[in-house]
Amino acid sequence: MDLKSLIRDVPDFPKEGILFRDMTPLLQSPEAMSYVSKNFIQNVDLSQIDYFAGIESRGFILAAHLASTHNKGFLPIRKAGKLPPPTKRISYQLEYGSAEIELPIGQGRIMIVDDVLATGGTLQAAIDLSFLAGYKVQEVAVLVNLTFLNQMKFNNKEVFSLVQY
Amino acid sequence: MDLKSLIRDVPDFPKEGILFRDMTPLLQSPEAMSYVSKNFIQNVDLSQIDYFAGIESRGFILAAHLASTHNKGFLPIRKAGKLPPPTKRISYQLEYGSAEIELPIGQGRIMIVDDVLATGGTLQAAIDLSFLAGYKVQEVAVLVNLTFLNQMKFNNKEVFSLVQY
Repeated sequence: MDLKSLIRDVPDFPKEGILFRDMTPLLQSPEAMSYVSKNFIQNVDLSQIDYFAGIESRGFILAAHLASTHNKGFLPIRKAGKLPPPTKRISYQLEYGSAEIELPIGQGRIMIVDDVLATGGTLQAAIDLSFLAGYKVQEVAVLVNLTFLNQMKFNNKEVFSLVQY
Repeated sequence: MDLKSLIRDVPDFPKEGILFRDMTPLLQSPEAMSYVSKNFIQNVDLSQIDYFAGIESRGFILAAHLASTHNKGFLPIRKAGKLPPPTKRISYQLEYGSAEIELPIGQGRIMIVDDVLATGGTLQAAIDLSFLAGYKVQEVAVLVNLTFLNQMKFNNKEVFSLVQY
């Protein structure tokens, strides 16, 4: 399936010089999301995964689709301040400024997913935070990898993606 | 299924005097979320629904589960500033201050869902915004209704909820 035909290029959003990859058309297609859910875990041993962990907020959509399709739990990696205690937090650098994400303290084997991989800063922070909060990170994957920016690795393997630019 | 046993009461979060209903344990249970997805639409004619529209960000999780389970599209009702044009925006009053939500301009028959109904301000704004952006709102439902605060109606019917407090 040609997923790129369902990703709309929007020049100069959210600011001049940025090419935004809009996945709204993809999310609106049940056939495409079913294809994504099935093919996203093609290299994953699902018996080793308890939860799909989604990064707020667009990662929530993908993680919930995966949890539903594959009959697994969902775990929210949230922006700091929204989850009740007990949690762990981690802060990390963005291109301009910094950000903070938070996770409930717990246990289990997780697959961390997000919609887009750009610099990898958020994804790496999510991995570090997951270990800190008590989880075992088994897999990390994204829907779209803007590979001209990144060749991020996890466990010595390149992070899996379904679509590359 | 006793869904309340999977909703944790957290006193004084996010601030003193507020009793927070934490749905993380429910989201972590595939059995519970499968039950939720099936029973959430018990009064709905699915042939009349094209998209489940989720309100950012916790509504995304529920809407994506429903879209996946029932083979429908997903539509994101986002906080303003995150969606590329063309969109419509609407602002509404909160207890303290105001908020703004945004939706891609489009068409189709939608069911709007959110995790919690408290005052109903966000949900009513989402309904108004959906019509403004071109959609036909067929159904509105929430997972948890804090009914002591609200008896919100849509199309002269009380808004459906699976859990009430």
